[in-house]
Amino acid sequence: MATQWTDHWAARTQHLKASSIRELLKLTARPEVISFAGGLPATETLPAQAIAEACDRILKTQADRALQYGPTEGYLALRGHIADMYRARGVPATADNVLITTGSQQGLDLIGRVLIGKGTPVVTEAPTYIGALQAWLVSEPAMTGIPLDDDGMRIDLIDLNQRINLLYALPNFQNPSGVSLSMERREKLVDMAHRERFVIIEDDPYRALRYSGEDLPALLEIEAARLGANWDSDGRIIHLGTFSKIMAPGLRVGWVIAPTTALRMLALAKQGADLHSAMLSQYIAEELLREGIIEGNYPLLVRIYRERRDTMLAALEEHLTGLAEWTKPQGGLFIWVKVPGVDAHDLLAKALERNLAFVPGDNFFFDGRGRDAMRLNFSCMPPDRIREGVARLGALLAEARHEPLASPAR
Amino acid sequence: MATQWTDHWAARTQHLKASSIRELLKLTARPEVISFAGGLPATETLPAQAIAEACDRILKTQADRALQYGPTEGYLALRGHIADMYRARGVPATADNVLITTGSQQGLDLIGRVLIGKGTPVVTEAPTYIGALQAWLVSEPAMTGIPLDDDGMRIDLIDLNQRINLLYALPNFQNPSGVSLSMERREKLVDMAHRERFVIIEDDPYRALRYSGEDLPALLEIEAARLGANWDSDGRIIHLGTFSKIMAPGLRVGWVIAPTTALRMLALAKQGADLHSAMLSQYIAEELLREGIIEGNYPLLVRIYRERRDTMLAALEEHLTGLAEWTKPQGGLFIWVKVPGVDAHDLLAKALERNLAFVPGDNFFFDGRGRDAMRLNFSCMPPDRIREGVARLGALLAEARHEPLASPAR
Repeated sequence: MATQWTDHWAARTQHLKASSIRELLKLTARPEVISFAGGLPATETLPAQAIAEACDRILKTQADRALQYGPTEGYLALRGHIADMYRARGVPATADNVLITTGSQQGLDLIGRVLIGKGTPVVTEAPTYIGALQAWLVSEPAMTGIPLDDDGMRIDLIDLNQRINLLYALPNFQNPSGVSLSMERREKLVDMAHRERFVIIEDDPYRALRYSGEDLPALLEIEAARLGANWDSDGRIIHLGTFSKIMAPGLRVGWVIAPTTALRMLALAKQGADLHSAMLSQYIAEELLREGIIEGNYPLLVRIYRERRDTMLAALEEHLTGLAEWTKPQGGLFIWVKVPGVDAHDLLAKALERNLAFVPGDNFFFDGRGRDAMRLNFSCMPPDRIREGVARLGALLAEARHEPLASPAR
Repeated sequence: MATQWTDHWAARTQHLKASSIRELLKLTARPEVISFAGGLPATETLPAQAIAEACDRILKTQADRALQYGPTEGYLALRGHIADMYRARGVPATADNVLITTGSQQGLDLIGRVLIGKGTPVVTEAPTYIGALQAWLVSEPAMTGIPLDDDGMRIDLIDLNQRINLLYALPNFQNPSGVSLSMERREKLVDMAHRERFVIIEDDPYRALRYSGEDLPALLEIEAARLGANWDSDGRIIHLGTFSKIMAPGLRVGWVIAPTTALRMLALAKQGADLHSAMLSQYIAEELLREGIIEGNYPLLVRIYRERRDTMLAALEEHLTGLAEWTKPQGGLFIWVKVPGVDAHDLLAKALERNLAFVPGDNFFFDGRGRDAMRLNFSCMPPDRIREGVARLGALLAEARHEPLASPAR
């Protein structure tokens, strides 16, 4: 008799939602597809040679530790180097404030387990990172989405009459919009969290990928500057970082920085989740960080991605003027394109027929909004394919304008 | 003002419980400690040289894929080889039935997310694997523990008048008891699951580590032999495997085999958990599996561990006769020792003073039982230290007999 698996699922599985991005990526693996869909680093930026050399050294001298079970919190030397990076920016963090995760995605998941239950009030940017939605919506929180403008999250629109448990922000080159939170709003947001006593989840995967404008301090740094020696007891920010965009995503090494009380609870949740993250990956990250190879790779990353961003912005100007509006990111990997009156899902269906892919905007909302927008990634296609892809997109949009509008019910 | 993190925790964090094993491991890292506490493979069994060579080849020829984002389900070639292993034993699995996980622990965690909610009836062996308890108790299931004898779980004691959603079993060299489920009970358990329509979670990390007796088929193989071509639609077993005990735990590569309907839901849960497991680890596992290096390492593993098991059993006979009772495992990593009238926590406190460590038995129960028992690991200490450690344990137990019993209230 056929097994009725639905009889066995827990109630929460009804909230498990596939990431259309990861489903799309399966379609876009064919080389003829111009994909603006994923958020993949350009392959040519991966420090493969340095990783191979590090791997060789590690396995010759420290194989017994790099291949053996390790601590849940992560490889101590790596945690120490990461703490050093933040100390250099004024955050009084030690290795005890650092938890190594299986990519930033696991950091988001652990935060969900520890801080989000049914009805927990959670504030996010709208649109926001799809991975946070995936990790958190299974717990059925009470979500509120705050719109963005060119200075990032409109924090003046946060309703302070309602309790907030946590607020999730990507201050730098937000995914998916590409916009950054202004310095003034950063200061105000940290004030607000302390006055209203909510927790900020600061997700910062892209900071090193700045192509124009001036580096701005993380919310964590602003808070630490105010709290000084009291940061570990009084801090309210859980900060996420990752090597995925500055070294290699396939190694799956991210980290969480938080006051020790919060960090210990996250580590406890991680024990049950996967015991610990891959040790060899952590040893590689430690070696590349210590040798300065990761930082040494920033100029290459910035040079390649700046050219691609500029190419995409110029192509949008050429092919989409009058058809759409888009953001002008100072860094990161994404541009957000609004296409009023057009259904991005219909457009994607046609685009795929012409070997072009992007992510429809509603994937980045928890309430179905965003079908008249899309996220374009510019990091993993070379400039000529970016130009060609945007030209195709422009042609599709021009055609869509001459068709009847999609019914609002869709 | 100090942050009151307890104001921010989700309700489920009260059920987050630290693994005493992982806490103990921090104490036992000093070289002078004789540790029977962990479940670590012997360092000398790790195929470090083969891994170094594989790593070198992978990073020379496939770095762009091994270092890049990969599919949530895992590296396709690895999934295919794992399916092949099971097909060779009569399970009609394809790569679509295989999900790569960040160690078996993640498999348990994903099963908890997808199949276990508040009040879900779950049956386990008692004692059982601590990692399953850690992953599942946060969801507040209705747990029932079934005692073990020398033939494994006493399946005749399963109460079939109550609904069971899933039953968790480690048929081979169970952790922590070391006992194996007899062939007769394996057949009956598979029958029972189909008759009573519950799901079996079969956790099988140790099968290759058999030192005496005859290899027995997995529950999955027994089911597949009965269902034949209907296995994918009618199967009710989710089977967990891992490279941790047969290659290297630090790489964190485990797998789940299940009918595709269940597998897809587990993969969906994994998307939110960590996107995917470390790719380099998966490429290494694929290469070592394809080259036959993993299987080629079995004789070494068996030779080393058999000697250690025999040494520990002989030392127990010499030093604990009349003081304790213990199991005689045919494989795996653990021996279970019952010490009636002695509190294993008191004993551990004294043992640590003499640089000896083990895990008190109550860690493997969800209801506080087992304080008069302990788990001894024999895989990661050389024979002379096993003899010395068991002698110390015998002396401690002899002393404990001359002391008043611990109060029953503890």
